[in-house]
Amino acid sequence: MATTTPVVGIVMGSDSDWPTMEAAATALDELGVPYEADVVSAHRMPVEMIEYGRSASSRGLRVIIAGAGGAAHLPGMLAAVTPLPVIGVPVPLRYLDGMDSLLSIVQMPAGVPVATVSIGGARNAGLLAARILGAGTTDEDAALRTRMEAFQADLAEVAHAKGAALRARRAGGPTGFTA
Amino acid sequence: MATTTPVVGIVMGSDSDWPTMEAAATALDELGVPYEADVVSAHRMPVEMIEYGRSASSRGLRVIIAGAGGAAHLPGMLAAVTPLPVIGVPVPLRYLDGMDSLLSIVQMPAGVPVATVSIGGARNAGLLAARILGAGTTDEDAALRTRMEAFQADLAEVAHAKGAALRARRAGGPTGFTA
Amino acid sequence: MATTTPVVGIVMGSDSDWPTMEAAATALDELGVPYEADVVSAHRMPVEMIEYGRSASSRGLRVIIAGAGGAAHLPGMLAAVTPLPVIGVPVPLRYLDGMDSLLSIVQMPAGVPVATVSIGGARNAGLLAARILGAGTTDEDAALRTRMEAFQADLAEVAHAKGAALRARRAGGPTGFTA
Amino acid sequence: MATTTPVVGIVMGSDSDWPTMEAAATALDELGVPYEADVVSAHRMPVEMIEYGRSASSRGLRVIIAGAGGAAHLPGMLAAVTPLPVIGVPVPLRYLDGMDSLLSIVQMPAGVPVATVSIGGARNAGLLAARILGAGTTDEDAALRTRMEAFQADLAEVAHAKGAALRARRAGGPTGFTA
Amino acid sequence: MATTTPVVGIVMGSDSDWPTMEAAATALDELGVPYEADVVSAHRMPVEMIEYGRSASSRGLRVIIAGAGGAAHLPGMLAAVTPLPVIGVPVPLRYLDGMDSLLSIVQMPAGVPVATVSIGGARNAGLLAARILGAGTTDEDAALRTRMEAFQADLAEVAHAKGAALRARRAGGPTGFTA
Amino acid sequence: MATTTPVVGIVMGSDSDWPTMEAAATALDELGVPYEADVVSAHRMPVEMIEYGRSASSRGLRVIIAGAGGAAHLPGMLAAVTPLPVIGVPVPLRYLDGMDSLLSIVQMPAGVPVATVSIGGARNAGLLAARILGAGTTDEDAALRTRMEAFQADLAEVAHAKGAALRARRAGGPTGFTA
Amino acid sequence: MATTTPVVGIVMGSDSDWPTMEAAATALDELGVPYEADVVSAHRMPVEMIEYGRSASSRGLRVIIAGAGGAAHLPGMLAAVTPLPVIGVPVPLRYLDGMDSLLSIVQMPAGVPVATVSIGGARNAGLLAARILGAGTTDEDAALRTRMEAFQADLAEVAHAKGAALRARRAGGPTGFTA
Amino acid sequence: MATTTPVVGIVMGSDSDWPTMEAAATALDELGVPYEADVVSAHRMPVEMIEYGRSASSRGLRVIIAGAGGAAHLPGMLAAVTPLPVIGVPVPLRYLDGMDSLLSIVQMPAGVPVATVSIGGARNAGLLAARILGAGTTDEDAALRTRMEAFQADLAEVAHAKGAALRARRAGGPTGFTA
Repeated sequence: MATTTPVVGIVMGSDSDWPTMEAAATALDELGVPYEADVVSAHRMPVEMIEYGRSASSRGLRVIIAGAGGAAHLPGMLAAVTPLPVIGVPVPLRYLDGMDSLLSIVQMPAGVPVATVSIGGARNAGLLAARILGAGTTDEDAALRTRMEAFQADLAEVAHAKGAALRARRAGGPTGFTA
Repeated sequence: MATTTPVVGIVMGSDSDWPTMEAAATALDELGVPYEADVVSAHRMPVEMIEYGRSASSRGLRVIIAGAGGAAHLPGMLAAVTPLPVIGVPVPLRYLDGMDSLLSIVQMPAGVPVATVSIGGARNAGLLAARILGAGTTDEDAALRTRMEAFQADLAEVAHAKGAALRARRAGGPTGFTA
Repeated sequence: MATTTPVVGIVMGSDSDWPTMEAAATALDELGVPYEADVVSAHRMPVEMIEYGRSASSRGLRVIIAGAGGAAHLPGMLAAVTPLPVIGVPVPLRYLDGMDSLLSIVQMPAGVPVATVSIGGARNAGLLAARILGAGTTDEDAALRTRMEAFQADLAEVAHAKGAALRARRAGGPTGFTA
Repeated sequence: MATTTPVVGIVMGSDSDWPTMEAAATALDELGVPYEADVVSAHRMPVEMIEYGRSASSRGLRVIIAGAGGAAHLPGMLAAVTPLPVIGVPVPLRYLDGMDSLLSIVQMPAGVPVATVSIGGARNAGLLAARILGAGTTDEDAALRTRMEAFQADLAEVAHAKGAALRARRAGGPTGFTA
Repeated sequence: MATTTPVVGIVMGSDSDWPTMEAAATALDELGVPYEADVVSAHRMPVEMIEYGRSASSRGLRVIIAGAGGAAHLPGMLAAVTPLPVIGVPVPLRYLDGMDSLLSIVQMPAGVPVATVSIGGARNAGLLAARILGAGTTDEDAALRTRMEAFQADLAEVAHAKGAALRARRAGGPTGFTA
Repeated sequence: MATTTPVVGIVMGSDSDWPTMEAAATALDELGVPYEADVVSAHRMPVEMIEYGRSASSRGLRVIIAGAGGAAHLPGMLAAVTPLPVIGVPVPLRYLDGMDSLLSIVQMPAGVPVATVSIGGARNAGLLAARILGAGTTDEDAALRTRMEAFQADLAEVAHAKGAALRARRAGGPTGFTA
Repeated sequence: MATTTPVVGIVMGSDSDWPTMEAAATALDELGVPYEADVVSAHRMPVEMIEYGRSASSRGLRVIIAGAGGAAHLPGMLAAVTPLPVIGVPVPLRYLDGMDSLLSIVQMPAGVPVATVSIGGARNAGLLAARILGAGTTDEDAALRTRMEAFQADLAEVAHAKGAALRARRAGGPTGFTA
Repeated sequence: MATTTPVVGIVMGSDSDWPTMEAAATALDELGVPYEADVVSAHRMPVEMIEYGRSASSRGLRVIIAGAGGAAHLPGMLAAVTPLPVIGVPVPLRYLDGMDSLLSIVQMPAGVPVATVSIGGARNAGLLAARILGAGTTDEDAALRTRMEAFQADLAEVAHAKGAALRARRAGGPTGFTA
């Protein structure tokens, strides 16, 4: 895996989704995974969208992350035209808190799966992409898997520290409090 | 409008949607509107789906009716590649009572509308197609609009008859009942 | 079609719906479709509402766009008294994010269809009206359909530009980023 | 109040609602309240529907019970054209378990109230009509209120008896059970 | 009906509900209906709550309006201990937009009806109370019913004026706009 | 704790809830906890319901399990009149799959908690009551806690056995299957 | 019960839950119940989470209060590894108003109950813990139960005062207002 | 990739989930991917569950598929203890149509992703696992990716055939039908 060739494609229907989707890029940066990011709209540029999906694998991408909101068709349509795993991020719009986005992405018919993460969960999409790449059997993949394990150990560290801070903050509390 | 050339295309993602979608065809038959029916899957044959939408207008279609269930992408994707009005029918699947189908179809982003009818409402999709055709300004279109008015008068007739039947059935009811 | 005679009627239950519904007017302006706009309340002026629907076709309207919120009865009641296609816009109110408006509009009984667009989707209602008019067979209708195709090409242009902008903005990003 | 003149009107959009709505009639029979029952469809016979509402009070009706399903407009439209209290019964249809019916009936805009009961709750609609009539100040109204109190005492009786039966049934149960 | 004796009781579980419930009082003021207002909590003072309901009719009340939020038990519990009609107002709390309040109030079991209005719909609760009182057969009741008819005529007036204002505001609009 | 004196009261609004609620009794039987079962309706016998709650503690009950459906007020009303922990079981009714029951029980206002279990989860209500009793500090309570630990160990045993059975059943499966 | 040894453990997945969960601590302070508070994350430190649950009883805890949001697994996982009663607090996150948190906590499978309180209802979690402790049979437990009864009496006092204040505030209101 | 060593682990909380989960196994069989299947319950055997997740990667698994229903914690808990990608299948239970299962699985907090498929969508879970394996860079992985492309081509074939069958079936239909 040459680190300068993107192996993950992050796409979204509009640049207005970028504030949500940027967290996927950040996660991949943290784990040293090269990626590309682009606007690919299922509804506004359907032919280019299909071309993007069809060429993804031959261009070297190994995972696609697609964010969309409302009647969110982008992840599912890309999954229809690539054999690669496609991760869908339900982007919440002004109404319905992203429930429409979630159902439009996750309820795919048998035959064409989309790996759906939580509403607005672009960071997890990036982490999931890293897990998928780390499931490979090359040394480079194993190294990424090891970085993921280190990342998970860090999560535990941070959680421990938060607990310690909470206990410390509470130490001078009201009589009878012992934590 | 030559009655032997289809002006409405009824499409669905799978032939398993036909029991739901057939009611659209029946409504068009009743109103004398020629149509075609086909399986066009957004997820299983995306390129042909786009071709279907792109050629629809030049083939003489004036309205497309598309039924789909779950993460229902067919109506919206067709609307993305045709200037014709697209009517979406949310087909209910085994779970969620069609709420996922409804939201996946109706919550389209600005720019690409889908005329959505009720969950499982294929009959209304046929009637809406007829109304759309009848909104034209030719004599043939006006004739269809007149048939629609006659159809609506029939609805009132039937409702009246049902009321009369209910009142009759109740006539020998318990003391104190006067209807 | 004389361009000074309205062919679309935009109506709403209260002038408080205008900030939502104005987007339908804007879309029609962009596409050169003449329209009228009015307050027609199903609940506060039911007789005038019915009269509006009954006379719409003879007054020259070819499509009605009706916006309403909560127990939103206006689109369905108008559809009951006109053979024209009626487009319903679910206006979101203070609570429930427009889900009540959506269900009250889209779940019409068999016989009386309403072409429902997304919650707050007045712009799409205007675009759908233009598609419906463009489905006619006169030269004027064909010209509108051609304008709709140009509008759709513009959507693709804008989406392309957004993608380019996103890629450009990202070009000086962290090491390893290649887009 | 002459017992042979209906004071409650039970109406519904279709005779297919009668199996649900009959329970309202039964409750009124039990409490000796004269009523009429009819099919009055907001969508299929809107003009007659408005006439029904407008004439209700002058015909001697004091309460209207209206059942409807899906995009349920009948109760609200009747409330718009009568000063009488209108009770709405959300009739559940094939999908969505009556949630659409409930929201379409209960979420009325300020100015036009509908007294909504539970999904499929026609029996309670009948009982509510009797409470409304019993809120009057004539001797006849007071007598009905007294009958309602007796009805409520009966409810308590039946509940007591059910408790006794449950305790009795359990008496020979497993060791350690003492009820 | 002596105007100084309350005939409607407006109650709520907490004074924090008053900003919502005040609209019921305002509506009754407008229609000249005397009422009382109080805090009666099903959960915090259950015995007094039951006493309130039990004595309501003998104290001269003819209708009870009860507002509550979340697991909203007040309207249903009052309905259990009075033969009077009880109107329930679902008060929206911080989460769930009042859907919990609505279901907790409207889904009453057979035998004990609550006349439910819209989420936050206290104004309609007041208007419904006036309709219920106006359904009586005394001259005073008929006079209230007449005032309700005048109120409804005013609603239509206001709606007409809004339509005129909208049309006027649009008169200098873009070319092609004719309203 | 004399094993013949009930320490848990299982109550429900109607004997029609017994098929659901019986599982609570069975769980308590399995763990040797004495209980009583009765019909106590918040809506049909509110005064007796309050008396039941008020006397529960002095009669020796330590936990109350209350099941109810729809606008489910029984658990919350009992919690209002007893200092004991009250466990609420949302009983699903014909429509809405118990969502109304759940929200009516769990969304209690601050001050009056109900320990809510899953929709139809009466078995877990019984187990929760046993955990609550086992949280006491007497020898008898500790013995019950020990029985709960044994019960939990049994759950693990059964799950292990199911895994073994599944692996065994799959052993002669298609080529390539290795479990 | 030595008042300096915690008998309740308040845990949460992240210190960002503390603003919500603090109300549980406050309620326990008011009732004189000693507790500890800590960050214990099911997803970020699963092994420590299990150890926390496994040792809780032997460390002297008698009740665990666990708050979590979204796919909220902490309460259920703790309940799986302790025989103590576990109270779950659904913490609302940015989207869905806590509905996901609620369902993830309350819908536990048979065998492993979680005592769920309302969305964001940490105060009630504290009060429920006190009720559970007060259900014990020692003198100390009885004293806590008595304090709970006093707390409930205070709730009634406050509600009464609010009613008086509301009536006072309304006393100079519009003509015809009598409360 | 030795075809006799499982690279996918299919686990579920109970053997009652097998009828749903079997479809994942079938999909993997069709694509020649070796797997194992087992019962691993988060709630009934939490320690073994964690051990399963912790050892998965070192045992040679590259993807885990976990199905669970209701408060479905298994997929998320496994994701917390493995660096491998975990696919979650929301198993629908008796109530709520799997909405609780879906939200409990998909709404994972940042840091711990679960790749969620549709409600009951075990077949897609198997296909997604194959896509993930095929995203690897070895020859064996590329071969699997090629098989996935063939599988997708088959989907299109079958859809085409269904369309042909529908058109054929309709060929002798009513006059005016042209498909």
